[in-house]
Amino acid sequence: MMSLQKGSGILKGKECMSHTVIVAGGTCDLSEYEDILKDAYLIGADRGALCLAESGYDIDVSVGDFDSVTKEELEKIYEASKEVEKLYAEKDDTDLEHAVKRAISTTARTVYILGATGTRLDQTLSAIYLLKTLYDAGREAYICDKNNRIRIVKGHTRLYKSSYRYVSLIPYGDSGTVASLRGFKYSGKHIALEKSSSLGISNEIVGESAEISCSDHLFVFESND
Amino acid sequence: MMSLQKGSGILKGKECMSHTVIVAGGTCDLSEYEDILKDAYLIGADRGALCLAESGYDIDVSVGDFDSVTKEELEKIYEASKEVEKLYAEKDDTDLEHAVKRAISTTARTVYILGATGTRLDQTLSAIYLLKTLYDAGREAYICDKNNRIRIVKGHTRLYKSSYRYVSLIPYGDSGTVASLRGFKYSGKHIALEKSSSLGISNEIVGESAEISCSDHLFVFESND
Repeated sequence: MMSLQKGSGILKGKECMSHTVIVAGGTCDLSEYEDILKDAYLIGADRGALCLAESGYDIDVSVGDFDSVTKEELEKIYEASKEVEKLYAEKDDTDLEHAVKRAISTTARTVYILGATGTRLDQTLSAIYLLKTLYDAGREAYICDKNNRIRIVKGHTRLYKSSYRYVSLIPYGDSGTVASLRGFKYSGKHIALEKSSSLGISNEIVGESAEISCSDHLFVFESND
Repeated sequence: MMSLQKGSGILKGKECMSHTVIVAGGTCDLSEYEDILKDAYLIGADRGALCLAESGYDIDVSVGDFDSVTKEELEKIYEASKEVEKLYAEKDDTDLEHAVKRAISTTARTVYILGATGTRLDQTLSAIYLLKTLYDAGREAYICDKNNRIRIVKGHTRLYKSSYRYVSLIPYGDSGTVASLRGFKYSGKHIALEKSSSLGISNEIVGESAEISCSDHLFVFESND
């Protein structure tokens, strides 16, 4: 592992900011996310770093083996980045998993992951499961793309009506009993969800907000067609 | 539940065929799958039935609430289908889950699911988990799209080199110990995989074939960028 600028171990400057945005190398149009990219601690993962650089952002740290970019593109990444952590191609973790570890090393409580979804469903599924790593590290984390906002919840959660029409609940483990759903089109108590059943798919928030109570970890997908 | 032609309970004709193809309403270009659509028992799930009808296929059974098609499109589905099972919109399972149950009711040992992936990642993830339902029913099942072929395996599996470059292994449960991987770029024994770790992502078959031995259920993703 090579590092242009070794971390000092002391968090300072933007590492103390309220949120971190990781941009990965999947499908992503950053123009839709200007609000959350502004003033965030920015981590570019592999080709996602190029996407940030080409969109004119100053990147706090870029990580990856960068085997998906040309030499010229890598130069652009170096120019736009305060720090570049170049990983071996033969590493065990993905560029995104390493970016998540970097996000956990900052004090930001909220993490948005952009560009984590795309044509390769192995990488998409792996990214969705990484939300659990962020949850376990005490972070509120979201994977966002044009049609989806995905998070992992446990305990009591209030969801606000948004531009996403559907809300789907899928247990993180094999199954999960939802103690109560309130304010949804399909509400109820003691609802047993199995991950291989589609009972929790395509619910909708009826009013301004809705509530989920669950003692197991649940994926919450807000989505549009 | 309404049915144009109630099932007799006796499997006959194409229901005895070697494989079933379910076409769901996600992103799908059927022209890439002519080989497997030919001579298969064909199930159209909601908008997937329209896709089959418009491509000129005779559909064995179409299932769904059909809230995603117009009245004219629904007529096309009725014309192309030997049987239409119209489900209530307020049902607990998705159209795809119901189509999977229909696939299990036939004797075909192999099931291909097309159009199950797309922009809505809740539906994509739910479809991936449905592979377990098919596995438990003794079926060899695949979700296929332009970039991915996904299956669930347990025990000993031989994979043949194909046009897909990458092979990724993700445990179905929280974790899975792979007894051995042979013939892969990254081979080995007693490999502990966690679903929220990306250790199993982006492996490659080195020669003509490779072997996986695992006593836990594993998702196998073959994919291309």
